[in-house]
Amino acid sequence: MEREFIAWLRQRLPGHPRLRLGPGDDAAVLSMAGVEDCVLTVDLLTDRVDFELERVDPRRVGRKALAVNLSDLAAMAARPLAAVAAVALPRQGGGELARQLYEGMLPLAAEYDVAMAGGDTNSWDGPLVLSVTLLGAVTARGPLRRSGARPGDRILVTGSFGGSILGKHLDFQPRVREALLLNGRYELHAGIDASDGLSTDLAHLAEESRCGAVIQRELVPLSPAAAELAAQLVDGSTAWDHALGDGEDFELILAVPPQEAERMLAEQPLAVPLAAIGEFIPEPGLWQREGDGLRQPLTPSGWEHRFS
Amino acid sequence: MEREFIAWLRQRLPGHPRLRLGPGDDAAVLSMAGVEDCVLTVDLLTDRVDFELERVDPRRVGRKALAVNLSDLAAMAARPLAAVAAVALPRQGGGELARQLYEGMLPLAAEYDVAMAGGDTNSWDGPLVLSVTLLGAVTARGPLRRSGARPGDRILVTGSFGGSILGKHLDFQPRVREALLLNGRYELHAGIDASDGLSTDLAHLAEESRCGAVIQRELVPLSPAAAELAAQLVDGSTAWDHALGDGEDFELILAVPPQEAERMLAEQPLAVPLAAIGEFIPEPGLWQREGDGLRQPLTPSGWEHRFS
Repeated sequence: MEREFIAWLRQRLPGHPRLRLGPGDDAAVLSMAGVEDCVLTVDLLTDRVDFELERVDPRRVGRKALAVNLSDLAAMAARPLAAVAAVALPRQGGGELARQLYEGMLPLAAEYDVAMAGGDTNSWDGPLVLSVTLLGAVTARGPLRRSGARPGDRILVTGSFGGSILGKHLDFQPRVREALLLNGRYELHAGIDASDGLSTDLAHLAEESRCGAVIQRELVPLSPAAAELAAQLVDGSTAWDHALGDGEDFELILAVPPQEAERMLAEQPLAVPLAAIGEFIPEPGLWQREGDGLRQPLTPSGWEHRFS
Repeated sequence: MEREFIAWLRQRLPGHPRLRLGPGDDAAVLSMAGVEDCVLTVDLLTDRVDFELERVDPRRVGRKALAVNLSDLAAMAARPLAAVAAVALPRQGGGELARQLYEGMLPLAAEYDVAMAGGDTNSWDGPLVLSVTLLGAVTARGPLRRSGARPGDRILVTGSFGGSILGKHLDFQPRVREALLLNGRYELHAGIDASDGLSTDLAHLAEESRCGAVIQRELVPLSPAAAELAAQLVDGSTAWDHALGDGEDFELILAVPPQEAERMLAEQPLAVPLAAIGEFIPEPGLWQREGDGLRQPLTPSGWEHRFS
């Protein structure tokens, strides 16, 4: 029942210095002291699209719902402040499910200093839907946007790509600390997180920056999962196809001026590797090149929600 | 398709001085200049629970999704700032549906000076789910909470109650302006909006304030829809039952010190009527009284999400 769950939540949610009023009223109240500009983002996850509730621990689903929002904040190089969660629960077992979702969110919230501020609990005759909204603060460097890449900028990425469906799409580490560190220490022109797929998100970034991008094939860091998935499937896809096309790696894709990129690559200031995989060019579109070969058009092959 | 919809949304969403960066990046950026404490609230609506998409114009559904959040801000006597919307769309006809939802939200957003800041667009093989998150600013008077009622305070309500299922649950006017005016001009001890039902929400308010509440039966303002619904149904329910039990009137329920209540009732500063319907008492629980009779226990009869 809704009331019992809210009573549980009020017991279970830790307080936070920023949270002036938590769950149990009509809205949460948060201190915005010191915040000039805030960022606001929401992601809604549905059963059988973003996760398979039949096969996965609900705690990992709850964690993912917060983590995808944290990844959006990482893409803006913003600092997380607070989150609210809204759920539509199946009636059967919904109470236990709601508690497990929170049990998955809370450790990640603590790790990233997110004040969990309550939300909205619903039940219905449908599958689980979970929507998390995250509020963050823009740092003194301003928001990292998609639209600032310039021709000549290097394409830098964190981590490796492909095959996230084998596990990373649930258990990935949002690159919040990495984005804040890089944006504080280096000059970044633009950024995006790889949620829909490396090729698709790079194309988004290039388009917003009104330029194009060339990927140097052999420089793309392939994750072990990309090769594993290519071996499992019999559709002729390669590890490289998966690295470029698979969604939900949640790594950072950055546009960095050449000299700054050299410095970043030499210093490797993160625990996760930073790699240069190509550059931005004046001609619009997405391109690939192998070795010293001519560049060829590359069709983005990532995720898009389809509806008519 | 998702991309076409986002392109449409970027064209269609009006700019707003507070909105530094709208849809099209990983998160929206909002100016929080002059905001010390903010309020954050989310409401998720599902087809066949909160509306019947088969029977109702999707614009009214979109409007309701924003309006229920505005009503939560009214309950806190907070000023709306910005909203994000997340949808899970049925695949067939989802694009047109998403546009209609926004066409319903935008006039209400303009009316209440809400910067629409984007959101998240998904499709799936399920019914429509729509989640709106609203960010607001606490005024200099601080947030109006549920927990401030004191024994002796009068129970004041705006408008009339019951039968909202006949139409008001979609087309109600959130009492934002009314709450801001009253909280600015009078001393209010506590407030809540009647979303789950007058009796249920009054019981919530009393419980949070650690006191009880007595409703004077004959003083409850019955809406014409309450009588209409009682006449339509053959279950023996009366207009009064509907006024107390039906959810989604979205009127304000306020705890006001007696002298201040007298002044408010005499001045009637709102376009909508203000009525006193009883008082708060030291003994916990919800009670009713008729005329000069003894008070009797009253069981809250409103809406609660049920799940096991």
